[in-house]
Amino acid sequence: MSLSRRQSLGALAVSALALPAVAAAQSQGKKITIGISVPAADHGWTAGVIWWAKQAMALYPSIEFMLMPAQNPEKQIGDLETMMVKGVDGLVILATESAPLTPTAKDAKAKGILVVNVDRGFLEPVADVFLEGDNKAFGRKSAQFMVDEFKRRGTAKPKIIVLEGIPCTVNTDRVTAANEVFKAAGVEIVGQASGNWNRQKALEVMETLLVRSPKIDAVWASDDDMALGAEQAIREAGREKEMWMLGGAGMKEIVKKVMDRDPMYPANITYPPSMIATGVQLAVGILRDGQRDKILQFMPKHLLIDVELITPENAKGYYFPESVY
Amino acid sequence: MSLSRRQSLGALAVSALALPAVAAAQSQGKKITIGISVPAADHGWTAGVIWWAKQAMALYPSIEFMLMPAQNPEKQIGDLETMMVKGVDGLVILATESAPLTPTAKDAKAKGILVVNVDRGFLEPVADVFLEGDNKAFGRKSAQFMVDEFKRRGTAKPKIIVLEGIPCTVNTDRVTAANEVFKAAGVEIVGQASGNWNRQKALEVMETLLVRSPKIDAVWASDDDMALGAEQAIREAGREKEMWMLGGAGMKEIVKKVMDRDPMYPANITYPPSMIATGVQLAVGILRDGQRDKILQFMPKHLLIDVELITPENAKGYYFPESVY
Repeated sequence: MSLSRRQSLGALAVSALALPAVAAAQSQGKKITIGISVPAADHGWTAGVIWWAKQAMALYPSIEFMLMPAQNPEKQIGDLETMMVKGVDGLVILATESAPLTPTAKDAKAKGILVVNVDRGFLEPVADVFLEGDNKAFGRKSAQFMVDEFKRRGTAKPKIIVLEGIPCTVNTDRVTAANEVFKAAGVEIVGQASGNWNRQKALEVMETLLVRSPKIDAVWASDDDMALGAEQAIREAGREKEMWMLGGAGMKEIVKKVMDRDPMYPANITYPPSMIATGVQLAVGILRDGQRDKILQFMPKHLLIDVELITPENAKGYYFPESVY
Repeated sequence: MSLSRRQSLGALAVSALALPAVAAAQSQGKKITIGISVPAADHGWTAGVIWWAKQAMALYPSIEFMLMPAQNPEKQIGDLETMMVKGVDGLVILATESAPLTPTAKDAKAKGILVVNVDRGFLEPVADVFLEGDNKAFGRKSAQFMVDEFKRRGTAKPKIIVLEGIPCTVNTDRVTAANEVFKAAGVEIVGQASGNWNRQKALEVMETLLVRSPKIDAVWASDDDMALGAEQAIREAGREKEMWMLGGAGMKEIVKKVMDRDPMYPANITYPPSMIATGVQLAVGILRDGQRDKILQFMPKHLLIDVELITPENAKGYYFPESVY
């Protein structure tokens, strides 16, 4: 009778009858190596990604990690090739851009390397596990909060500004889902423009939109960097009492404002850069005992992280003052 | 040093590097204990859940598992209380019903026990991690396959039967999403009824629907047990050449038919009972090194498993002949 069969029969499991096959391999000194390849950044969401990757790495001193941030796709392809030459067992990849990285990811997969893809997908379903935020839920939930907030404030016929990000599926999914909610609730979009998920760009487009729109009740800023840029434009126009806004992604400065009940920031919505740490955690769990193939039988190929509304009541649980984001 | 500690860290790194705080506790002989509480069943999707739970348990001989299937909510509440008395560190729960289990889950959480909830959610967001299939995607993707298949077959003005499951959010999410796709594509629903995700019930309602509908191109059966019941009714009526069908959830008998290019089953869609194994894998990973609080900082509270279309081309990867489902 096999171990697994014995285990399955009793309510209390068997302990130490047989070790997984890997135990022997590990005792021979083969250390698991995992490469982490992400876009480079010294601020914003991507900087948060790097910070969180390091948090996860610190939990597993027995694993050998290679963390390489890349300024552009060419650098990232080179980093991945370096990692492959070094003989990594697994790769956790947040792509700078999807298209140029897809062949390299396929190459890694063909070499038998575990590929965990986080946030930005490849053009084909190459990854063993693809983990991303649910951007449709991001749009739907953030818009629904605004509709509810207008009701709470008694705002009749609400007028809003919509700030979009860089044109890509992430932005499209968010904006399309939000627009459906706004439309169904009779919220009027009086101005819409792309701020490229960038503070300075959002400041500039908001300046223009403010001039064009004599009455604005709120701004769906959809990103915390853009929210800060838009806020600056609003304050410079002296209209900060007129409107409030909803950013997004849980930047610590904005979460703090929500926690402190800043009237301009009644809520926020998560899109955690910590998803890279989740990706590292999954890769470690799949590889560490040498039971990769068995675990991949039940590990979903595509996992979506639901986004959550941050309010003054729960903001503490989303506030990480020591994080860079 | 205990066996589990040696195993989890591997031979090399242990010697040189500082150990996490838990190492001391574990070396005193405290073994991690995880309770798994699921609905009882000797066939169908739920039997698959139990089978997959055992697969995951078998991977971790150093963890002490308690697997207790329950026929009803009262039994399940009793099981969970028993597990709490035994001092489990974590619980993986697939609820028989959401409402009666919610207070017990809250109780476990209040006692500091890790709660991983799989598939059927509680009425409040109690769980540390809630992992479920994306039922809206289930409806959308399965309906889109049917629309595409009608085009491939050159079926003009397609007429279909829709079989629904037990009335609950899972069913509502699936049916609503599917209906949107059918409506947009001009697919006519000529009959719709609930087969309760049950083979016998589906057989009965299909008999009635066949009598009422002189022309049917396909059946959106949405569940493999229901597909088998409906197929029996169709064959008994001698109409098996007239229509094809799409079940759902990846029952091995149906996946085999897809793989073998059975004309009645051109495809299937996943809703894997193996998600319980994913839940066990997550619980083990969170608890095994005693770094639970740090891991929960980046572990998403709500994870959705995307569903995947199974076609003759990829069916092999979804076929587990040794599984009970």
